[in-house]
Amino acid sequence: MKRSRSGRRPGNPDTRESILAAARNLFAERGFDAATMRAIGAEAEVDPALVHHYFGTKEKLFIAAMQFPVDPQQLVAEVTAGGRDEAGARLVRTFLSIWDSPVGAIGASLLRSAVSNEWTLKLLREFLTTQILRRVLAELQLDPAQAQLRASLVVSQIGGLAFARYILKLEPIASLPSEQLVGMIAPNVQRYLTGELDTSGSAAA
Amino acid sequence: MKRSRSGRRPGNPDTRESILAAARNLFAERGFDAATMRAIGAEAEVDPALVHHYFGTKEKLFIAAMQFPVDPQQLVAEVTAGGRDEAGARLVRTFLSIWDSPVGAIGASLLRSAVSNEWTLKLLREFLTTQILRRVLAELQLDPAQAQLRASLVVSQIGGLAFARYILKLEPIASLPSEQLVGMIAPNVQRYLTGELDTSGSAAA
Repeated sequence: MKRSRSGRRPGNPDTRESILAAARNLFAERGFDAATMRAIGAEAEVDPALVHHYFGTKEKLFIAAMQFPVDPQQLVAEVTAGGRDEAGARLVRTFLSIWDSPVGAIGASLLRSAVSNEWTLKLLREFLTTQILRRVLAELQLDPAQAQLRASLVVSQIGGLAFARYILKLEPIASLPSEQLVGMIAPNVQRYLTGELDTSGSAAA
Repeated sequence: MKRSRSGRRPGNPDTRESILAAARNLFAERGFDAATMRAIGAEAEVDPALVHHYFGTKEKLFIAAMQFPVDPQQLVAEVTAGGRDEAGARLVRTFLSIWDSPVGAIGASLLRSAVSNEWTLKLLREFLTTQILRRVLAELQLDPAQAQLRASLVVSQIGGLAFARYILKLEPIASLPSEQLVGMIAPNVQRYLTGELDTSGSAAA
């Protein structure tokens, strides 16, 4: 099944696509941690060595499988560079700078297809959890007992910001300059990251 | 085109459906305020008096057209009953009580179809703006200069909560008892409603 190659991309495009499809299946079904490179090779019916050869690490394979437009590692570095106290503002700013850029359209279409497709949703949740949130939590050294909770609260605000600004296009949030949004939204994200959280469930009113 | 009737619903079901379809079209195209009952009747090719006869007010027609599972007026009353200072907690609680109930599934399917369909999205935005937000803002007597901004920020949090809990099903936010979520999320919603908002865009970091 070998084809002649003209580009600089190594390997057979069919093989590459088979591996990507197999990776999407196994990441969605088993999760990132349990889906081994060996199992992905087997599912794609190629030698596991080829999986490594084409994609390097499992992380890089996941990024390629998601067609994720930016390197999560670089994104995490930007968010955490100022330490815990700046993380709220940096998170909102980094997020808006990606979505306001040309690659933001990829984010919107990913969000759209995730909402209407259970399988894409599983993949997105797995990607968000293992490739982004897990790293942000480790970098910021949050109390592990509350880290997952704080991360999911942050997603509730950032996901809703994406929905209101880019999908629902609700004014004025849809057209405000991003720095104004950072000023208004960052304190709420910062509270989710490092503020007091009343988890007792005994709120008044 | 008259059919025999057996139920207690007045009028011809074809006529009812024509009016509902016409209403959806005009509310999406012209907006709620500009779409008159007369224009909706004309679009449906029925006497405007029939539109009033079947649906009463334009508000009730909009609720029927959206198949909205609860009465927005009652919803707004619940949220604003405790005045401005309790509105954050009441808003999160009311919202969760609806979504956690059997009718919540209708909300999820409305959100799903809005995200993938521009026309449904327009209708949802128009409904949210004219039937819910406008009333909440009036009841709470927020400064009109900032009212729309505050409302859109609230939507960014509440919409994101729906996304994280019911669609993405991100843990632990997906399974926490609603009163715990109220305790954690209400202060952020309250800040959007009545807190200081830095709109200068000169946030540090």
